[in-house]
Amino acid sequence: MSGTRTELSTLGEFGLIDRITRNFSIHNPESVKGIGDDAAVIDTNADTYTLISTDMLLEGIHFDLSYMPLQHLGYKAVAVNVSDIAAMYGIPKQITISLALSNRFSVESVEGLYEGILAACEEYNVDLVGGDTTASRSGLVISVSVLGITEKNKIAYRNTAQPNDIVCVSGDLGGAYMGLQILEREKQAFLQSPDMQPELEGKEYILQRQLRPIARMDIIHELRELNIVPTSMIDISDGLASDMLHICRQSGVGVALFEEHLPIDAQTYDTAVEMHLDPSTCALNGGEDYELLFTIRQEDFEKVKNHADIFFIGYIHEAAKGTDLVTKAGSRIPLQAQGWVHF
Amino acid sequence: MSGTRTELSTLGEFGLIDRITRNFSIHNPESVKGIGDDAAVIDTNADTYTLISTDMLLEGIHFDLSYMPLQHLGYKAVAVNVSDIAAMYGIPKQITISLALSNRFSVESVEGLYEGILAACEEYNVDLVGGDTTASRSGLVISVSVLGITEKNKIAYRNTAQPNDIVCVSGDLGGAYMGLQILEREKQAFLQSPDMQPELEGKEYILQRQLRPIARMDIIHELRELNIVPTSMIDISDGLASDMLHICRQSGVGVALFEEHLPIDAQTYDTAVEMHLDPSTCALNGGEDYELLFTIRQEDFEKVKNHADIFFIGYIHEAAKGTDLVTKAGSRIPLQAQGWVHF
Repeated sequence: MSGTRTELSTLGEFGLIDRITRNFSIHNPESVKGIGDDAAVIDTNADTYTLISTDMLLEGIHFDLSYMPLQHLGYKAVAVNVSDIAAMYGIPKQITISLALSNRFSVESVEGLYEGILAACEEYNVDLVGGDTTASRSGLVISVSVLGITEKNKIAYRNTAQPNDIVCVSGDLGGAYMGLQILEREKQAFLQSPDMQPELEGKEYILQRQLRPIARMDIIHELRELNIVPTSMIDISDGLASDMLHICRQSGVGVALFEEHLPIDAQTYDTAVEMHLDPSTCALNGGEDYELLFTIRQEDFEKVKNHADIFFIGYIHEAAKGTDLVTKAGSRIPLQAQGWVHF
Repeated sequence: MSGTRTELSTLGEFGLIDRITRNFSIHNPESVKGIGDDAAVIDTNADTYTLISTDMLLEGIHFDLSYMPLQHLGYKAVAVNVSDIAAMYGIPKQITISLALSNRFSVESVEGLYEGILAACEEYNVDLVGGDTTASRSGLVISVSVLGITEKNKIAYRNTAQPNDIVCVSGDLGGAYMGLQILEREKQAFLQSPDMQPELEGKEYILQRQLRPIARMDIIHELRELNIVPTSMIDISDGLASDMLHICRQSGVGVALFEEHLPIDAQTYDTAVEMHLDPSTCALNGGEDYELLFTIRQEDFEKVKNHADIFFIGYIHEAAKGTDLVTKAGSRIPLQAQGWVHF
C-alpha cells in the first residue's frame, strides 16, 4: 500500500462506500440501477425488472448468540433481505445463503438455523436456490442475497419523493431497539449472578421485534391491491431519522415529521421510560424495526387513511425548508442521522 | 437445541448441505434450478435465463493476507464467481459485494482491494450494482454474488453428460496448488529468519495461478462462436477428481480419464518434483485452478481438436464401468474426491 494511512473511522460506512465506488461505472445496459437504493434493478428484457439485494450478518457485530436463538437468527437473516425487496415495491422470489461456521457448531445447531430460514422462506414464499458453506476460524457469518421482481412501472426508488407527498410508516418504531436494551441488561445481570432468572415478562413484544423482525410484505400486497405505488420508499434499518434523510437527500427535498404522530407501542414507551430513555428518540434513532417508510401522493391518502397499520407522520416540502422534527411543544429540530456502528 | 450433538466433521460440506436443505422445496415456477449446480437458474419470462451464484471468502480460511496482496484478492473474489457463471455457459452481467472489515484496515488498503475488484469488473465486463459494508471483529470477509444470463437452449448443467462424450479441460491443472505450496514454504522460511529473501524466481506462473486466477470466459466466447454447447460443465475449484465425480454422479455416468493426457505446465511439474509430490496427484486433487471441465459430443470434436488450450483427457461411459483414472502404466484406479477443508 502507499505510505498514507487513513483510518476507516474518519469516513464512516457511507463515506467509505462513496470513496471506493467512485471509479466504478455501469457497462451493461441491463443494469438499470446500481448502488444507492435498497436493491439493484436489472432489466432482463422481460415485462418485469429483476431486483437483487444482499446483506451480511456477523456474530459479535449484528447478533449475539448468548441471547439470539439460531432459529430466530435464520428467520431474521431472510426477513431483513426480503424487507429490501419490499422497499422497492417488489415481490421476493429467490434467496442464496452463504454460511461460515466453526466446529463449535453442531449439525443440530445448524439445523436449527435452517429451520428458521425455512420458516421465513415459507412465510415470504421465496425459494432457497443456492449458497456456499464454509469453515470459519471465529464466529458465524451469514450472507444472504435475495432476488425479486416488480413491474417496470411499479417500482419505488429512494430518490423520487416530491413536495406535498405524505410521509407514511407501516407499524410502530423503537421496539427492536428497546428489545435489544432489555436483552443486553439481562445478559449483564446473568453474567453477574448466573442464578438469577431473566426478567422478560411483559417484554414479549419488544423482544420479538428485536429477535424475529417481520418483513412488511403484507403492506406491499395491500398497497398493490389499492393500486398505490409510493413515490419513494425505504425500509427502516438504521432508524427513522437516518432513513428519512436518505430519502430527502437522494430526492432533493425536505421534510417535516411530527413527534406527536410517531407510532410507538405502549411496551416500547413504558420500557424506554423505565430505562430513563426518551421514547421519541428511541423511535427516531432506534433502528432494526424493518418497517417501511414511504411517501404517497395526497390523492392516494383517502384510500389508506383508515388503515390500522399505516401511520402518517409528516409531509415532504422543498429542500430549502429543511429536514426537521416538529416537537410536541411546537419547536423544530433538525433530524440527525444516528451514528452507524463504528469501525 | 436437542440433547444430541453431531459434529460437523462427521458430515463434511456436501453431507451438511444435503441434510440441511432436504426440507426445502421450490415454490415459484420461476426457480428453474436450485441448489446443486455452479449457479441457480431463474426464468424471468424473457428470452434468456438469469443465473445467480454466490461465494464467500474468509481470511484465515481462503486467503492469508501475509502473502495475498489485497488487489489480487479483490480480483480473485470476482473471478471465482464469474467462473461459476462461465461453468453454466453463461455471460456474467452484475455483481454485488458484501465486505466485513476491522479497523486494522486503512481506507487505502480497502481502496487497494477495490482496485482489484474494478480490474476484474472491467476484464469480465460486469457491473458492481450493490453490496453491504460492515464492521468485523476479526478477519476480512468478502461475499460476492454474481448474476449472468444465457439463452434458454444454451445452458450447461452438471447432470447431462452422456456416454461417449469426450471430457475436456481448458488449460493446465495443479498450478494453483503448487503456487500455494511455494507461498506457504516461503512464509515459514520468513517466520524462521525474517531477513531471508523469498525464493520466488522461476515460480511466477504458478504464483499467478494461485494469487490471481482467471475465469475462462475466453473459452465460453470461443465455444459460443463455434456453436458448441457442452453436454455438461463445471469449473474446477475443488480439484479435477472431485469435480469430475460431481458430473458423473449427477449425470448417472462413469468416466475414464487418462493420466498421460492430464495437462500439467512445466513449472507445476518441476515444482512438484522439487517438493517430492506426484505431479499427477497435484493435477487431480490440487483445486483452485478455475479451469472449465466439460464434456462434448463426439461430433463436436473436429471443431476444437486443434485448439491450443483445450485438452481432451478422457471419455464418458456407462456408470457401471466406473469412474477411473487410467495410469501411464495402463492400470485403472478409482478417482477419489479430495477431502474438503475440514470443520
